[in-house]
Amino acid sequence: MDSSAAPEHQNAAASVQRWLEQFRSCASQGQLATYIPALADNNPTDLGICLIGREGQTIRAGEWNTPFTLQSVSKVISFLVACITRGVPYVLDRVDVEPTGDPFNSIIRLETNKPGKPFNPMINAGAITVASMLPGDTVEEKVEHILHLLERFVGKRLAINEDVFESEWGTAHRNRSLAYYLKAIGYLEADVEVALEVYLKQCAIEVTAEDLAQIGLVLSCDGIHPWTHEQIIPVEVAKMTKALMLTCGMYNASGKFAAFVGLPAKSGVAGGILVTVPPRVADQDLPFLSGCGIGIYGPSIDECGNSVAGVKLLKHISREWKMSIF
Amino acid sequence: MDSSAAPEHQNAAASVQRWLEQFRSCASQGQLATYIPALADNNPTDLGICLIGREGQTIRAGEWNTPFTLQSVSKVISFLVACITRGVPYVLDRVDVEPTGDPFNSIIRLETNKPGKPFNPMINAGAITVASMLPGDTVEEKVEHILHLLERFVGKRLAINEDVFESEWGTAHRNRSLAYYLKAIGYLEADVEVALEVYLKQCAIEVTAEDLAQIGLVLSCDGIHPWTHEQIIPVEVAKMTKALMLTCGMYNASGKFAAFVGLPAKSGVAGGILVTVPPRVADQDLPFLSGCGIGIYGPSIDECGNSVAGVKLLKHISREWKMSIF
Amino acid sequence: MDSSAAPEHQNAAASVQRWLEQFRSCASQGQLATYIPALADNNPTDLGICLIGREGQTIRAGEWNTPFTLQSVSKVISFLVACITRGVPYVLDRVDVEPTGDPFNSIIRLETNKPGKPFNPMINAGAITVASMLPGDTVEEKVEHILHLLERFVGKRLAINEDVFESEWGTAHRNRSLAYYLKAIGYLEADVEVALEVYLKQCAIEVTAEDLAQIGLVLSCDGIHPWTHEQIIPVEVAKMTKALMLTCGMYNASGKFAAFVGLPAKSGVAGGILVTVPPRVADQDLPFLSGCGIGIYGPSIDECGNSVAGVKLLKHISREWKMSIF
Amino acid sequence: MDSSAAPEHQNAAASVQRWLEQFRSCASQGQLATYIPALADNNPTDLGICLIGREGQTIRAGEWNTPFTLQSVSKVISFLVACITRGVPYVLDRVDVEPTGDPFNSIIRLETNKPGKPFNPMINAGAITVASMLPGDTVEEKVEHILHLLERFVGKRLAINEDVFESEWGTAHRNRSLAYYLKAIGYLEADVEVALEVYLKQCAIEVTAEDLAQIGLVLSCDGIHPWTHEQIIPVEVAKMTKALMLTCGMYNASGKFAAFVGLPAKSGVAGGILVTVPPRVADQDLPFLSGCGIGIYGPSIDECGNSVAGVKLLKHISREWKMSIF
Repeated sequence: MDSSAAPEHQNAAASVQRWLEQFRSCASQGQLATYIPALADNNPTDLGICLIGREGQTIRAGEWNTPFTLQSVSKVISFLVACITRGVPYVLDRVDVEPTGDPFNSIIRLETNKPGKPFNPMINAGAITVASMLPGDTVEEKVEHILHLLERFVGKRLAINEDVFESEWGTAHRNRSLAYYLKAIGYLEADVEVALEVYLKQCAIEVTAEDLAQIGLVLSCDGIHPWTHEQIIPVEVAKMTKALMLTCGMYNASGKFAAFVGLPAKSGVAGGILVTVPPRVADQDLPFLSGCGIGIYGPSIDECGNSVAGVKLLKHISREWKMSIF
Repeated sequence: MDSSAAPEHQNAAASVQRWLEQFRSCASQGQLATYIPALADNNPTDLGICLIGREGQTIRAGEWNTPFTLQSVSKVISFLVACITRGVPYVLDRVDVEPTGDPFNSIIRLETNKPGKPFNPMINAGAITVASMLPGDTVEEKVEHILHLLERFVGKRLAINEDVFESEWGTAHRNRSLAYYLKAIGYLEADVEVALEVYLKQCAIEVTAEDLAQIGLVLSCDGIHPWTHEQIIPVEVAKMTKALMLTCGMYNASGKFAAFVGLPAKSGVAGGILVTVPPRVADQDLPFLSGCGIGIYGPSIDECGNSVAGVKLLKHISREWKMSIF
Repeated sequence: MDSSAAPEHQNAAASVQRWLEQFRSCASQGQLATYIPALADNNPTDLGICLIGREGQTIRAGEWNTPFTLQSVSKVISFLVACITRGVPYVLDRVDVEPTGDPFNSIIRLETNKPGKPFNPMINAGAITVASMLPGDTVEEKVEHILHLLERFVGKRLAINEDVFESEWGTAHRNRSLAYYLKAIGYLEADVEVALEVYLKQCAIEVTAEDLAQIGLVLSCDGIHPWTHEQIIPVEVAKMTKALMLTCGMYNASGKFAAFVGLPAKSGVAGGILVTVPPRVADQDLPFLSGCGIGIYGPSIDECGNSVAGVKLLKHISREWKMSIF
Repeated sequence: MDSSAAPEHQNAAASVQRWLEQFRSCASQGQLATYIPALADNNPTDLGICLIGREGQTIRAGEWNTPFTLQSVSKVISFLVACITRGVPYVLDRVDVEPTGDPFNSIIRLETNKPGKPFNPMINAGAITVASMLPGDTVEEKVEHILHLLERFVGKRLAINEDVFESEWGTAHRNRSLAYYLKAIGYLEADVEVALEVYLKQCAIEVTAEDLAQIGLVLSCDGIHPWTHEQIIPVEVAKMTKALMLTCGMYNASGKFAAFVGLPAKSGVAGGILVTVPPRVADQDLPFLSGCGIGIYGPSIDECGNSVAGVKLLKHISREWKMSIF
């Protein structure tokens, strides 16, 4: 927090700091995502948050600077890349934008629905399809598109955590099953192993809560970077993606998150949550209500896959500061 | 349209009029909901719209005054009544707020999920559960609660179309199947036939597009009637309900509606759509952007159950006027 | 046991007596079907068996004469009546003869399969469809056809246990759900409540293990009563029904029963099992191997719905006496 | 046909010849299994049959000597190998013997049932699990066990059709999906690619209708080769396998095949059907009624995957000669 900041900003920062410590202990209600071996070393009581407003006002608290892997948060980025490079109609021909109510790794609808078009790009099936349609023939080319877009968002080159990638690659049986099923029914463009490697590499990109806040801020501004004024993603893609995050972003607790937090968000099983706060009308005392991005890190996750403490903290902030878009 | 209205309002009204006629012919891409015999007499090319702003500015076009039955739009009203009278925790113990991706009349999840708690009150299973928990022992008492809330919204007593009710009552086999299944698994409080009659009577309440706009306006104002300043529904219930409409309101095209229209809405198979537009920051030239309600009537529906022309008209207006909440 | 019987018959009878007492204690591995209140009064350690051979040789042991209700065993009888009175093609147009692997009261396939033709008449959905196609307009007429066929099998008029019927009628929510669903998709001919009452009345018909043995004997003889030489059911219907019993008769443990017992059988949740033993080639010392019927009563049932002790006893007898048809 | 055969045998052979030509044209009601490219070259109107009795009486007609690949018929053989080498309890801990009513390549139950134990070894999921538990570490070792058992059945070394194997290997996306899913849920012992290669190699083993008849004959004799009197498979394994064939052997038309043919059988999409006829009591004029094996080849298959003409021919023979085990 900038010591020269306005008093209302300093008050806001103090509140966030207090709330974060208040909810930190909720981590005990969840657990680390042990099915990915490399995530088992994380500290379950870590909790970090970063908020960045349109004028660059920033609040950081807790483990806001601890690196973690994107995991499912990367689904937002790869979807953005696909829409930008392939065009929205092309993408929507191959993946729908409907919520499902099913677990993220469910395979059932690929068989029960004819054709088995994945319901949305926020579940694994849809995300693997999206990975397959990224431009380029090789894993490196496809992943590079994701890293490049991320660099435009956060202003620096991000890296893949190779340990996490290797750990997931070796135990990705269920994702591999999804990928081969998609291939069988015609919803995978690339070679299966290429698509899967792209997907798992994007999951293993390392970020901090601050990085997520920065991405959320650009989405809040409909794809325009607020400082460079660069249009990083088209407005219609930004809006569609925020809608998708709201309806499908928090695994099969997306409905409750929309009801009780009311903000577009995407979580990952490493504990990250990317939140974007569209601008609101009232209470302009609070700088973050004219639009901001929020990043969360809290690696203890609930049975749906969402950070336990992170969701509670967001619920509290949204209610206190009336951030819901509804 | 009031002839003394401001020029920008007059321009808006003229645009709406023009767009409505432009999309009227899309009705041919859908058909009347023939599975309810009494709906088969409607005129498929009817298309009506009404928008009402916070200061009472109103635009009406097409068949805005043609009466039709609420059908699934009533699910919003009964959910509001249940939350107000039973309290949110009581209601959410008995029905979740998660989207499903399934058809509105699907029964599968009641068996596959343990316990079979209905996923949300916008699908038939959830709505029948909600109907069963309305206060009162008799059909009349329960329905009266719905009619009473509607009266507070629209300022007049609405009536049940008995022909439509009778028509649905006689062919409600699938809803009856859902109701008995709910009873079997403990998610129906009242007598099955009572709950079902309440549900079908609420579906048969007759409204106009203008009535829906009025309801949408109160929701836009977080439950406060903008003219009487009366708090008709608590803020938290209003916000949760709008979130629910966004994630689940347009049957299993809710995700696409959120992506391309970006407004909380609830449709019914008689062709009605209730839309609520939360206030936005920019473009204050346009009076409706500071929050409004929209009602649509277009009885030719698509395979998901949504008014074909109505959805296209809303998509156009939302894009032209940047109404999306995202 | 007839004291003037042949020595090998006396030996067989003594073996059966001994085996029955050996398996009686297995009842503790199951429990009474408490979801039907009136069945909760039965004695869980009851175990009765009766075998009747083609020459009238009979072995009776344990509670062979204790009355109990047919429950799902009645599905065999109503299917026979439907085939005899409507003709096999008519019946098979409305219900298939394929096993499902699903619980007996599952509703899922009615929605997932198009059209939702019930998979077989041994699950509740199929049995309710069969009940609806029995000749006659009233419950009494339809049930009379079942009672009449039973009378031809066992030589006496059987009665409906009204207490059991009333008990099931009042809690038949899930069966009612199935029935209304069948009506909705066009697989129920009669009025729903009529079909359901027929189904629940046939379930409440009271028999003994000896009665079941008698029915099994006639089926073993391909529909010819071995003493009157009357052709009670056509040969092709008898054979098809025995095939159906083998593939679908023991709920979703039918495959294991076929593998380890190897005899066509149908169980009911009151603890009855109807078994039919087609004639075999070898070991003609044992009178029952030239074809017989077996009836079992053991009201403590496993999670699939089959008599725990009954299945174990049958498995033992089939192995000892090489009764498997395979 | 041996010209020195008994007159009744000559009559039987003439009948079979006549019936075969009568049903050959039914091939037009089905089609070749085009999803396996290498099968598209087969002649759809081929139809061959071979029956072999316990005394060696043989009837051959049509394309009884045309080689084709086992495909799903191999599931019987690999299951036998697994039971012999691992023991029945070991095998049944890892795969059940319950019919499903689902298509052979369905993946749904692996997710909906907890744990996702495959329902039976006649569907692909179960067969891949069985392939993984065959003794040996390499593909060659595991396949050798299958080839070795086949050699004991038919008295000669069978070969793998490498073209068919390669053709399936390259397009085995759906089977690969099943295999990885099984690995994910703990129902695959070997390396996924090893199990899959074993499975696809066993599918590509080349046989004739006469070979299948020979296998069916040994099964009819409960595992004892009728000429060498060698016990190739234990009696209990033979009986369980025949039960499994009856309940699950003809894909999701197994129930109808049991009802209208009444014989344990296993089909493959290349058009083969392995049938085993347990000995019957009566009509000892006809040599095949004291137990025989039947092999069918007819590559035009119906939508379930069974030879159209083959099933019709078997139905006719079974009815004419009263072969049903029921």
